[in-house]
Amino acid sequence: MALHAIAASAIDQPGLLFQLTKVFADHRANITSVDIHNTAEESEIYMEFTLADDVIDRVVEDLRAIPGVHRVDETPSFAKIYGKRIVVMGGGAQVGFVAMGAISEADRHNIRGERISIDTIPLVGERELAAAVRAVVRLPRVKLLVLAGSLMGGEITTAVEEVRKNGLYVISLNMPGSVPDAADLVVSDPVQAGVMAVMAVAETARFDLMRQLKRRY
Amino acid sequence: MALHAIAASAIDQPGLLFQLTKVFADHRANITSVDIHNTAEESEIYMEFTLADDVIDRVVEDLRAIPGVHRVDETPSFAKIYGKRIVVMGGGAQVGFVAMGAISEADRHNIRGERISIDTIPLVGERELAAAVRAVVRLPRVKLLVLAGSLMGGEITTAVEEVRKNGLYVISLNMPGSVPDAADLVVSDPVQAGVMAVMAVAETARFDLMRQLKRRY
Repeated sequence: MALHAIAASAIDQPGLLFQLTKVFADHRANITSVDIHNTAEESEIYMEFTLADDVIDRVVEDLRAIPGVHRVDETPSFAKIYGKRIVVMGGGAQVGFVAMGAISEADRHNIRGERISIDTIPLVGERELAAAVRAVVRLPRVKLLVLAGSLMGGEITTAVEEVRKNGLYVISLNMPGSVPDAADLVVSDPVQAGVMAVMAVAETARFDLMRQLKRRY
Repeated sequence: MALHAIAASAIDQPGLLFQLTKVFADHRANITSVDIHNTAEESEIYMEFTLADDVIDRVVEDLRAIPGVHRVDETPSFAKIYGKRIVVMGGGAQVGFVAMGAISEADRHNIRGERISIDTIPLVGERELAAAVRAVVRLPRVKLLVLAGSLMGGEITTAVEEVRKNGLYVISLNMPGSVPDAADLVVSDPVQAGVMAVMAVAETARFDLMRQLKRRY
C-alpha cells in the first residue's frame, strides 16, 4: 500500500467532492486525508490516499477528466512536510514558554530526520478550552496535547479524559484544578514541558517518555 | 447559506467518502472542509459545509443510514474553535521568539472575541523550507506566513513569490538572502514580527498593517 498525495484546482460547485471521490472508489484507493480550500470561485483540493495497485497515473488521468477540474498534480504529503503535530493551548504567558521549549527541542529532532510541528492557541474560558480539547482528536496528525494554564478543571478535565481514551497523550503544567490529575504527565516548568512533549513523540528520542506515566516533575 | 459541521465515525473502507459525499451532493450542500483521521479499523470524519436549505436534520439522518457508519453528530466548526492560522517556519531560535510575540498578541485579541492560532515548524534546508512554504497554501485557514531564519533565498524565494500570488501574506525577519525582498513586510525583531503578524490578520486590530506593504522595521 503506497501513500500518495495530489493537489487539484477546480471550479467550486456542489457535488465536486462526490465526483472526485468516485474516481478514488473506482480505483479502490483508500483516502486518508482531505483538505479543501475555497478562494472565490475556485476550490483547491488536497488528498492523501493509499493505493493497493500501481495505478496512480490512471487516478490522476481520471481526475483530470472531471468537468470543472483544471489542474491535478502529484505532490509531497503533509505527513512528509509538517509531520507529527503537538498542540499547546491555554494562557498566553504559559503557552509561549511551552512553545519555546517545544520548538527548540523539535529543531534538534527535525535536523536528525524527524518532522514535528508545534501548533498553539491562547484561549480563555472553561467552555472554550473544553471545546478546543475535544476538537483536537478531529485534527489530522496530532500526537500530543499540552495544557498550559494556571487553573484548569471542570469541563476541561472531562474533555481531557475523553481525548485520552481516543489515544491522545496529554501533558499538563502543574497548576490548581483537576486537569493535572487527569493528564498522563505533569510538569512544573513550561519550557521543560515543551521539551518533554517533543521527546515523547519523537522517533529520534532515545527512550519512551510515556513510560513515566502519571509522574510529576 | 448556513455553515454546519458534523463529526462521524465509520468502519474504514474504500469508497466510504464517496458514499458520504453523495449525501451532501443530494442535498446540494457545499463541502468546504474535510478531515479524516484513521485509527486501526475506524475512520473519524469531520466535515464543514454550507446548506442553502434548512435540511441539516435530513443530511444527518441520511449519513447515519450509510452501512458502516455508526455515529454522526453536529459539532462546532474548526473555524469557530481554532480560527485563523498564522504559520511560522525557519530556525528554532528565531521561530521560538516569533511564536512568543505572536502567542502573546493572539491572547489579547482572542480575549476580545477573535480566534487566532499560531502554528510553527523548525526546519533546516532550502529544499525542505521551499516545500513547506508551497504546502502552506494547501492547509486550511492559514492567513499569514512568517519566515524566521538567518539566511533564506534561492528556491525559498521562488516559493514565497508563488504563495503571495495565491493571496497569502508573508512577513520575513530581516536577514541575508533574497527572501526579505520577496516578502510583504520585513521586521528585524522576532517578537515584534510575531506581534505584527497577529495584528495583520486580527479583525479586532485598529488598523490595517498590510497597508505598510514593502516597509522594513
